[in-house]
Amino acid sequence: MDLTKFIRDIPDFPKPGIIFKDITPLLKSHDATSYAVNRIYEHYADAGITAVAGIESRGFIFGCPVAGLFGVGFIPIRKPGKLPYDTHSEEYELEYGTDCVEMHIDAMGPDDKILIVDDLLATGGTAAATGNLIRKTGAHIAGFSFVVELEFLNGAEKLGDIPILSLIKYS
Amino acid sequence: MDLTKFIRDIPDFPKPGIIFKDITPLLKSHDATSYAVNRIYEHYADAGITAVAGIESRGFIFGCPVAGLFGVGFIPIRKPGKLPYDTHSEEYELEYGTDCVEMHIDAMGPDDKILIVDDLLATGGTAAATGNLIRKTGAHIAGFSFVVELEFLNGAEKLGDIPILSLIKYS
Repeated sequence: MDLTKFIRDIPDFPKPGIIFKDITPLLKSHDATSYAVNRIYEHYADAGITAVAGIESRGFIFGCPVAGLFGVGFIPIRKPGKLPYDTHSEEYELEYGTDCVEMHIDAMGPDDKILIVDDLLATGGTAAATGNLIRKTGAHIAGFSFVVELEFLNGAEKLGDIPILSLIKYS
Repeated sequence: MDLTKFIRDIPDFPKPGIIFKDITPLLKSHDATSYAVNRIYEHYADAGITAVAGIESRGFIFGCPVAGLFGVGFIPIRKPGKLPYDTHSEEYELEYGTDCVEMHIDAMGPDDKILIVDDLLATGGTAAATGNLIRKTGAHIAGFSFVVELEFLNGAEKLGDIPILSLIKYS
């Protein structure tokens, strides 16, 4: 299946000069979403995944069904102040200023092998920070998966030697 | 399965005097998440659902796997400014001030029968606004489903005659 047919270009969003890759047509199609989720599962089927971490908020959409296929739990990675229990947090740099990702301290441990799921790999800041967050627990990161990768932003370089699956790449 | 065992009480979050119902232990358990998602599906299995709308952001976690069981598409209902294409929007009142939910104008139409999914029914403001948003497209709302309902906040009264499924109720 050619998933690119389900991605809509939105010029000048969120600001002038940027072409936003809109995944809502993909989500609207059960067949396309099911195909995407199954491809992520099949790629990591033999990696011994014990939990799936999804990055707020579009990573939640794909992360939970992927966790369901693996038969493992789902761990939400959230923006600051959203998780109610004690958290680890990891700050990262934006073009202007900083942002932060958080995870509950009891979400995972050293015996876990984690698949990190998000919809988009752009500059890689959020994904790299999520990796650092997970390392604080001693858990092993088995891989990253994205529906769309904007290769020209070189986000993959920030993710080190960890395997990356991107279903659609724009170069 | 007693899902209440997977809900953790967090006192004084997000502010003093409130006991927050933390669903992350439920998400961490594949069996509990799968049981919850299947109960939502089974309850509405004969309702002719053509799409599932999930409310940002914890509604995304449950909404997408529920859509998968129905074999239909998933429609994200988002906070203002997050959706890239043209949107319908619906404002609603908070304790102090207002908030807003948005949906793409091409997300659904008059032939659709929609199941609205969120994790929590509290005062019902967001859920009621989502209902109004969906009515703007002419789509039919087949029902609401929540994992947790705080009955003492009377949110159900804001949702009119539409069927509501809440897997866990606190009275």
